[in-house]
Amino acid sequence: SSASTPIRATLFPGDGIGPEIADSVKQVFQAAEVPIEWEEHYVGTEVDPRTQSFLTWESLESVRRNGIGLKGPMATPIGKGHRSLNLTLRKELNLYANVRPCYSLPGYKTRYDNVDLITIRENTEGEYSGLEHQVVRGVVESLKIITRHASLRVAEYAFHYAKAHGRERVSAIHKANIMQKTDGLFLKCCREVAEKYPEITYEEVVIDNCCMMLVKNPALFDVLVMPNLYGDIISDLCAGLIGGLGLTPSCNIGEGGIALAEAVHGSAPDIAGKNLANPTALLLSSVTMLRHIDLHDKADRIQNAILNTIAEGKYRTADLGGTSKTTEFTKAIIDHI
Amino acid sequence: SSASTPIRATLFPGDGIGPEIADSVKQVFQAAEVPIEWEEHYVGTEVDPRTQSFLTWESLESVRRNGIGLKGPMATPIGKGHRSLNLTLRKELNLYANVRPCYSLPGYKTRYDNVDLITIRENTEGEYSGLEHQVVRGVVESLKIITRHASLRVAEYAFHYAKAHGRERVSAIHKANIMQKTDGLFLKCCREVAEKYPEITYEEVVIDNCCMMLVKNPALFDVLVMPNLYGDIISDLCAGLIGGLGLTPSCNIGEGGIALAEAVHGSAPDIAGKNLANPTALLLSSVTMLRHIDLHDKADRIQNAILNTIAEGKYRTADLGGTSKTTEFTKAIIDHI
Ligand SMILES: CC(C)[C@H](C(=O)O)[C@@H](O)C(=O)O
Ligand SMILES: CC(C)[C@H](C(=O)O)[C@@H](O)C(=O)O
Repeated sequence: SSASTPIRATLFPGDGIGPEIADSVKQVFQAAEVPIEWEEHYVGTEVDPRTQSFLTWESLESVRRNGIGLKGPMATPIGKGHRSLNLTLRKELNLYANVRPCYSLPGYKTRYDNVDLITIRENTEGEYSGLEHQVVRGVVESLKIITRHASLRVAEYAFHYAKAHGRERVSAIHKANIMQKTDGLFLKCCREVAEKYPEITYEEVVIDNCCMMLVKNPALFDVLVMPNLYGDIISDLCAGLIGGLGLTPSCNIGEGGIALAEAVHGSAPDIAGKNLANPTALLLSSVTMLRHIDLHDKADRIQNAILNTIAEGKYRTADLGGTSKTTEFTKAIIDHI
Repeated sequence: SSASTPIRATLFPGDGIGPEIADSVKQVFQAAEVPIEWEEHYVGTEVDPRTQSFLTWESLESVRRNGIGLKGPMATPIGKGHRSLNLTLRKELNLYANVRPCYSLPGYKTRYDNVDLITIRENTEGEYSGLEHQVVRGVVESLKIITRHASLRVAEYAFHYAKAHGRERVSAIHKANIMQKTDGLFLKCCREVAEKYPEITYEEVVIDNCCMMLVKNPALFDVLVMPNLYGDIISDLCAGLIGGLGLTPSCNIGEGGIALAEAVHGSAPDIAGKNLANPTALLLSSVTMLRHIDLHDKADRIQNAILNTIAEGKYRTADLGGTSKTTEFTKAIIDHI
């Protein structure tokens, strides 16, 4: 209602199709009367002429202050020495857990029915340490770092999430038969946390076996928690089961309860500006942001409108085999609200 | 024919169901009059009382001398400090490439039709270096090692294999956007080799994206070559597409042309000795061993007999939903020869 103070949330529309799909979110939020006021900042591959920066201090500070944010796709700046902006945001905001719900969309057929999984990925260390060097010519090494601190933190988040969302099982994914020390420490931390949640079944699954089981029968899993690279791999595999990254939400959780939801698909420069992009992943991500601040009514309304629009099948963007423009698809969702 | 000198091949039946499925191979080879004489050695979790060894020098020497071998499943010896015997064999015999053909079995329905992929995995280094240590309490690291030597060697093998088997495309799988130095070196080596094979299309695919594409549409790939851990993950994922590790052959290639074919599934102690095991993976692996020494006639005969038996569906082991004993299924294959 107009009487209550609006909640401020940061919006990074990003590059390529980012601004178009961000517009879609803004319109849908308005239609659903979500009490959110966007604080929009540009983060992306174009340099701010004033600051010569891809990512300003103000942008980071905005997320820190608001505690919640939504980001569109960002390309990696071209040229030597530039880190992916996605990684930079994870690092700067200490976004330690990446949560990706992955569920079959009614009416959108793939080889799999009734997928309903949550992948929770450690998001700050592991194979993403950035520590690499050449030992001698022709011999290079990368360091995978696993810490007790980061492993406990993501394990805590996974069990907390499982309990809060009425989930029954947490599977820790690892390769501790080979990396006994690193993945071994990760498992040890998961076990410690598991003991505090006796109502949740805990199991450990080797990553290669996990991938085989996922493609044979994804219903074998519920919540999966894992080190960084395994999470990168398995979350994409799971997205593939239900149709791809254009359909899956993602939310990054940081210390102090920060949540930065994001579309994890690319910026699709080839179709940018053509009103052809599918806003579903960003919309569903915005729903996870609403749930993070317990606006479940609004979240349900928007999520149902998206799912019903896709289920009806009358308005679908080209990537889903339809002919709708981004704005037509958005309008159809709004009509469902 | 009885006049020609038989070819000697090493056989490691292994643990659990190993001896039963190895018997199946021996019978099928005899029925197909394969001119191979087995040199059988025990390698597995039971200690040789004389030598106190899980793996004797004679066993290794046998493969080195014969140049070809077949191994069943081996469990990892229990107790501290024991390395997996699979890994020990790879290391001792310098088995640098692991080749896993993965194709849909006619008549055995999964969610995927017409899968026809070859995964070629670097088998000696990468995340399997075994180099790990604790930096301080609660902080551990593993080293991933990539060398020019091993990367060129497996890339050479992949392109050589692709050409020899009439394959059109080689995809190098990597995460060089994150591990620029290690996976970057791997890709650099693949590119160098690719230049020598202009008739073969070469592409590079990021591992997360590769897994998503594989579950959406495996027909997008042909031959895949990759560092050790990615190969471990992707080969199991691919096996899942066509029904699991009980159905996929595997062959390890070493320096000097050694080939050690193997079933990569477990030793299934729960059903060991009960005549319930499915010998398909070991049989199809033995076929890859025959192809390695260009016995294509025999290989074709045996492979067709296996595929036809499975396609008919009258005799199938329990893991494939049937009720046949190992010996009945083997007999059915022999009847098809
Ligand atoms: C773009 C890339 C650096 C990133 C990652 O590897 O984490 C992406 O794959 C993701 O999953 O968000
Ligand atoms: C048993 C294990 C050590 C092995 C590996 O990780 O290589 C297995 O998964 C394989 O693929 O052969």
